[in-house]
Amino acid sequence: MTRNTSAPFTAAEFHTRLNNTKASMVEQGLDLLIVTEPSNMYYLSGYDAWSFYTPQAVVIAQDWGMPLCVVRGQDVNGAKLTSYVGDDNIIGYPDHYVQNPAIHFMEFLAEILESRGQKSKNIGIEADSFFCSARSADRLRSSLPNATIKDADLLVNWVRSVKSDQEIEYMRQAAQITEITLKRALDMIQPGVRQADVAAEIYTASTGGHPDYAGEYCAMAPLMPTGVGTSCPHVMWRDGKFENNTCTTVEVSGVRYRYHAPQTRTLFLGKPDQKVLDTTTAVLEGIDAVLGIVKEGVSTREVHEVWTKTIEKHGVYKNSRCGYSVGIGYPPDWGERTISFRDIDETVLTENVTMHFMPGIWFDDWGIAITETIRVTKEGVECLVKSPQELFIKD
Amino acid sequence: MTRNTSAPFTAAEFHTRLNNTKASMVEQGLDLLIVTEPSNMYYLSGYDAWSFYTPQAVVIAQDWGMPLCVVRGQDVNGAKLTSYVGDDNIIGYPDHYVQNPAIHFMEFLAEILESRGQKSKNIGIEADSFFCSARSADRLRSSLPNATIKDADLLVNWVRSVKSDQEIEYMRQAAQITEITLKRALDMIQPGVRQADVAAEIYTASTGGHPDYAGEYCAMAPLMPTGVGTSCPHVMWRDGKFENNTCTTVEVSGVRYRYHAPQTRTLFLGKPDQKVLDTTTAVLEGIDAVLGIVKEGVSTREVHEVWTKTIEKHGVYKNSRCGYSVGIGYPPDWGERTISFRDIDETVLTENVTMHFMPGIWFDDWGIAITETIRVTKEGVECLVKSPQELFIKD
Repeated sequence: MTRNTSAPFTAAEFHTRLNNTKASMVEQGLDLLIVTEPSNMYYLSGYDAWSFYTPQAVVIAQDWGMPLCVVRGQDVNGAKLTSYVGDDNIIGYPDHYVQNPAIHFMEFLAEILESRGQKSKNIGIEADSFFCSARSADRLRSSLPNATIKDADLLVNWVRSVKSDQEIEYMRQAAQITEITLKRALDMIQPGVRQADVAAEIYTASTGGHPDYAGEYCAMAPLMPTGVGTSCPHVMWRDGKFENNTCTTVEVSGVRYRYHAPQTRTLFLGKPDQKVLDTTTAVLEGIDAVLGIVKEGVSTREVHEVWTKTIEKHGVYKNSRCGYSVGIGYPPDWGERTISFRDIDETVLTENVTMHFMPGIWFDDWGIAITETIRVTKEGVECLVKSPQELFIKD
Repeated sequence: MTRNTSAPFTAAEFHTRLNNTKASMVEQGLDLLIVTEPSNMYYLSGYDAWSFYTPQAVVIAQDWGMPLCVVRGQDVNGAKLTSYVGDDNIIGYPDHYVQNPAIHFMEFLAEILESRGQKSKNIGIEADSFFCSARSADRLRSSLPNATIKDADLLVNWVRSVKSDQEIEYMRQAAQITEITLKRALDMIQPGVRQADVAAEIYTASTGGHPDYAGEYCAMAPLMPTGVGTSCPHVMWRDGKFENNTCTTVEVSGVRYRYHAPQTRTLFLGKPDQKVLDTTTAVLEGIDAVLGIVKEGVSTREVHEVWTKTIEKHGVYKNSRCGYSVGIGYPPDWGERTISFRDIDETVLTENVTMHFMPGIWFDDWGIAITETIRVTKEGVECLVKSPQELFIKD
């Protein structure tokens, strides 16, 4: 079969990822790792398709030189087209395993592992990912009674947390698309405009992408709560229109080769009252303070502390984390689920860690969010998206 | 808090859903059900937000008159805005439960259940859904050692499989958006047009929606494999353009109040060869045969058999199911994971079951798909989307 997509990464980069994963597996006492989170599957194999609504896995074994892709029969061709592992390392499972309570993909996978001498090994699973269900783990345990099944959630996610130069390049491209998209959304929002039409514009801009390269589908739908909706970050548009004297927060991301670079800006329609202006001042000061201290060697707890102390001087409080690691994304999330900016996180930042610094503030009846996707450098920080860092106002 | 969204269903309809769910729970010996699949949460509570990337649940207990919504703290306002359960039945959990391996949402939920007298009950979980991880089940079991935790996957999905008149109405609205969207995509595809730009057009049309009502975000990104990509249904666009003498399959869905009505059509650019024409004849004859026999009382196995026998007369074979139940959708899927058209499924169809009849054929280097979202009636079948049922050709 002729591959119709040029590989986004070199074989050498994939091998580095594999070796780093195997090294982490040694630390966790694992002979084998069953990778089911689509972003981790893509990271290790290059396999990229909207097939994650049925079970599939990439398996890494210390004994094996290449990852093994096990996908639904009808997706074998997709794996051949997009992954680098070679046709011999792609196995399709019969369709009667799909959504059939009587049998399970993990039983099929267990047979494969047994036939390849892996039935009594220390096996890691991504136990808290969306793509490793309770039944998956139960069926795997009962199918391989001599194996030791361990919770190795986030093992690959942690390997992913430091980006290569090529990954950073894709995030910069994604960031350019984010900037284009956000500007078009903010330009379009006016009292009387239907929210769905702005969502359509966001999709058009982010998918159309940059003049030199296309955009891809985003791991999250456009988040653009408005009015009282801004009191909570995740309520979606229906039939409503934008209204005067309200805030709207617009959170979007461009995507290149599945890499995301999200950003949020807040727009006020009308003349903001003093409370909005004062909160904006606090938030912008907090952002300045954080961007001023982030660099290699600083801990995430320190970042959170600087943020918190700065806004609390203004009487503004936030009881949730103010950022998370970001990169490859598949629905339902572009976050990597590893590093957070919060008081219980002691991660020490290193060069090329990428974070969505997300200092959103949600009150009972409104909210504001001005965010940055940042790359940690040895000396400081690179903001990947170049949108003006301010409260947008249309009076 | 003022609710800014009109409820899409009456309280009476929600109560019917609750009672039907409780009746199924009795059959499965359950006192309590922890619902974590977003579509099921929405179905039972009305809660609708893009918050499903962190843990959350709707809990149904035989003892309780209303569902209980347990969501992340910052999503409490979203639940108040969109659900019908009342503020007293919404509980927020602290943010340090998010993506923190040391503690788990299920431990928080277990404390709530214990405080409400439910610690020693028969408790069902949706054990094979995306939103019930292996660790979720393990932590729930260890937190409630006196409870009996049972696999009740798909319990609510089965309740959902027969639609109310109001649900059918939303699916018809979604279908009108599907028809608009599909037409615009097919009109736009030409040799030399960038695939991403057609994806953008699909998003614009499906989100902009119908002149009388807006569209929503779709549970799946537009699927539009082209050329060799049509040999597999789930590979996504990147930077490529459409080329002459190739097939493209376009699979999209409009969405109203989270209800989907998907459809696929195939477009050939250039002059199709005899193999394409012959396969099309077989597929269209198979579709005719299926639509001619579907009605209340017919089994899904019989539907599959008619399909298979008809296309096999033409020497065409398909080794995967040819349809699945459809309705409410959240990423990553618009399917309900219950009924399939296949030889191992013995479901007897009843009025207002809605299926995506999906007779896609995927060969080694190309494929064709012409699909219908259908409503089963007492006498036959209603095709919800009205697109011409043919192979589209631009020569």
